[in-house]
Amino acid sequence: MAEDLTSRIHEIGRTARAAARVLATASSEKKNAALLAMADQLLIQKEAIIAANALDLEAGQSHGLSGAMLDRLRIDEKRLSSMAEGIRTAASLPDPVGRILKEWKKDNGLLFQKISVPIGVIGIIYESRPNVTSDAAVLCLKSGNVCILRGGSEAIHSNMAIAAALQAGLAQGGLPAAAIQLIPVTDREAIRILCEMDAYLDCIVPRGGKGLIETVVQHARMPVIKHYHGICILYVDKAADQEMAREIILNGKCQRPGVCNTVETLLLHREIVPAFFEKGGKALWEQGVELRCDSTTLALIPSALRAEYSALIKEATEEDFQTEFLDLILAVKTADSLEEAITHIESYGSHHSDAIITRDESAAEQFLQGVDSATVYWNASTRFTDGGEFGFGCEIGISTDKLHARGPMGLEELTSYKYKIRGTGQIRS
Amino acid sequence: MAEDLTSRIHEIGRTARAAARVLATASSEKKNAALLAMADQLLIQKEAIIAANALDLEAGQSHGLSGAMLDRLRIDEKRLSSMAEGIRTAASLPDPVGRILKEWKKDNGLLFQKISVPIGVIGIIYESRPNVTSDAAVLCLKSGNVCILRGGSEAIHSNMAIAAALQAGLAQGGLPAAAIQLIPVTDREAIRILCEMDAYLDCIVPRGGKGLIETVVQHARMPVIKHYHGICILYVDKAADQEMAREIILNGKCQRPGVCNTVETLLLHREIVPAFFEKGGKALWEQGVELRCDSTTLALIPSALRAEYSALIKEATEEDFQTEFLDLILAVKTADSLEEAITHIESYGSHHSDAIITRDESAAEQFLQGVDSATVYWNASTRFTDGGEFGFGCEIGISTDKLHARGPMGLEELTSYKYKIRGTGQIRS
Repeated sequence: MAEDLTSRIHEIGRTARAAARVLATASSEKKNAALLAMADQLLIQKEAIIAANALDLEAGQSHGLSGAMLDRLRIDEKRLSSMAEGIRTAASLPDPVGRILKEWKKDNGLLFQKISVPIGVIGIIYESRPNVTSDAAVLCLKSGNVCILRGGSEAIHSNMAIAAALQAGLAQGGLPAAAIQLIPVTDREAIRILCEMDAYLDCIVPRGGKGLIETVVQHARMPVIKHYHGICILYVDKAADQEMAREIILNGKCQRPGVCNTVETLLLHREIVPAFFEKGGKALWEQGVELRCDSTTLALIPSALRAEYSALIKEATEEDFQTEFLDLILAVKTADSLEEAITHIESYGSHHSDAIITRDESAAEQFLQGVDSATVYWNASTRFTDGGEFGFGCEIGISTDKLHARGPMGLEELTSYKYKIRGTGQIRS
Repeated sequence: MAEDLTSRIHEIGRTARAAARVLATASSEKKNAALLAMADQLLIQKEAIIAANALDLEAGQSHGLSGAMLDRLRIDEKRLSSMAEGIRTAASLPDPVGRILKEWKKDNGLLFQKISVPIGVIGIIYESRPNVTSDAAVLCLKSGNVCILRGGSEAIHSNMAIAAALQAGLAQGGLPAAAIQLIPVTDREAIRILCEMDAYLDCIVPRGGKGLIETVVQHARMPVIKHYHGICILYVDKAADQEMAREIILNGKCQRPGVCNTVETLLLHREIVPAFFEKGGKALWEQGVELRCDSTTLALIPSALRAEYSALIKEATEEDFQTEFLDLILAVKTADSLEEAITHIESYGSHHSDAIITRDESAAEQFLQGVDSATVYWNASTRFTDGGEFGFGCEIGISTDKLHARGPMGLEELTSYKYKIRGTGQIRS
């Protein structure tokens, strides 16, 4: 049985590798035509997809999934249309393959070109809603990559139906259906097999919780681009515009608490702690945010406020500063200086997105320079860490790695490069 | 004992991580001053280094190392001067850190900058001559990275003496000596411990044989940039200039057979096989190159030549086309078409450096497009795959990976990037 699974997945890898050779030289026109056909097929096959989705919803209900989770799982006509629209948008974006990244000539007459090329075969392991199946497949195809998708068990029927529609579109567009592959089993063993299949996979992208990421990192023999958690930190400097600080922390914590670019820790310069609580603290409490404060901060909260909002004030534990709450909870700490704030971020943060609010330009520059995170903000919300907000047109996720891709990953980050060198008989002396 | 080794190496990691924070914001002037001090120290400490080297040479002799290997191991004044010269060259190169890679403004007024930053802490595992200790440490320092070096046992005394001199230079230049670290033991277990230390290492670069690379790939929990072998392939098209083909294959095979960008397989278009052997084949045999030919090729070698050079003609096995000979041996195969040649390269090559010799531009473009290798050449020798020949000023090696860095890795490839985003209070709606 295990051997059977291994050989099934290896066969998927083998056909994926063959399809990658075709995709690598496919023209932009051909890829875009296939994308449009894929968008059409999603709508043509809507009944089959919605029926498959019903099976997942039914299973989810009997497994006791929450209403929110069932809602994330649900596919209706509107959501299908929006998936199809996403595909059409991808078709309209510039081709990330074939860009001349650099070009130079040497004295010996050799002409060097550094040109973007597809990565090859990309494994994507995810636990999210079924629309990821379409989004990930589409971005891979647009960038000339073959994808091997492995979604979560809760969406297996939906994922298979979506993949079938996309493959029909590929075939209609004259590209190999094997360019989009979905592992049709949800056995966890499949992840280990994928991770060890470095003969066929050039790269693997895990999107999900700590357990999934750990499993992939432990087993993977090929490069991994992790899409890990975000412990994003906002530092309000002594020279901050307090009103701006209030708006930005409200946006960072409350606008969408369940995502990775939301603020989890607030650092306040000692000089402005009481003033901050008068308006900013109050605004957070009014939104129902629980503040877990270190003892210094607790002592600095004006006593009237401490009495009024006592239900939403707790003493922070060490662990609170290492936690991605994804909820209306915020860890709060007082910093004696900018340096202390930077040191805290370097020690406790996840190097995802961190921000400083200040009117002091030199403090801001020191922060932007000293904080080693994928995205660092001066006087703006960390919520902007997003491929769309960056202007990438789309994103496959937010890389928390430092090699190859860091921060929002769009189409360009889904490419590698090669050097084309043209000569007239040059040899090395 | 094993626990002791683990805690020693973890302590190295911890201090490396702390030093990385200092290096990340060190100015170009400070790094360059430290580099010049390091070059001076290598010469100041020359007696200690040469004495340490004598211990390695003695041990090597008693372990029966060959004369060639002992020569690779030897450090004399001339070699020390050339190492010091290499450091001064690195100091004179532009700083790869702090480059603005991209810059744009969004309608909401947010200003985005994508800026190059150091990777952080880089582990480098190598088996080569002791000068790699200096070369690798210097390139890491120049690019703001801390390195943890783990050289081979045969050079341990030399490596430690070189590292000590470099660290003295660092301290003199006002940078933490912990920015260059050498694992002072050659226990193989040290590699496993390094590979699992993802809390402290951002990346690991193994340079060496298959066994070493396999060990690292299996254990590493952080990104690996492999510097693997090269099975470089030269294809002589039917429209080739035969004289050019002869010069390029002689250069590719004979100029320095022991390096990774040397040609290991020669593909000949069927139409030109006999003509090639009359001059090109003869020139190779005259240089003492053994040709291992597939049966089609064997049958096409003019009989007079076959008789004259019979000692240097063998029938190739399947394995010969998968072998990096690093010697005066060449696998030779006849291809019926350009497509067959490309398919052979994709199946048997190592995606390192491959070349086509032809006068036919459209054949050349098809080759440059269709061969998925780090460097692809038209009418030039694969021997040019080298950081210096590319104009990088230096190189840490040739990456055979597709992510982050592909082909020659210079200073720019030793950097990551981050996004600095400056606003005026923007929040996400």
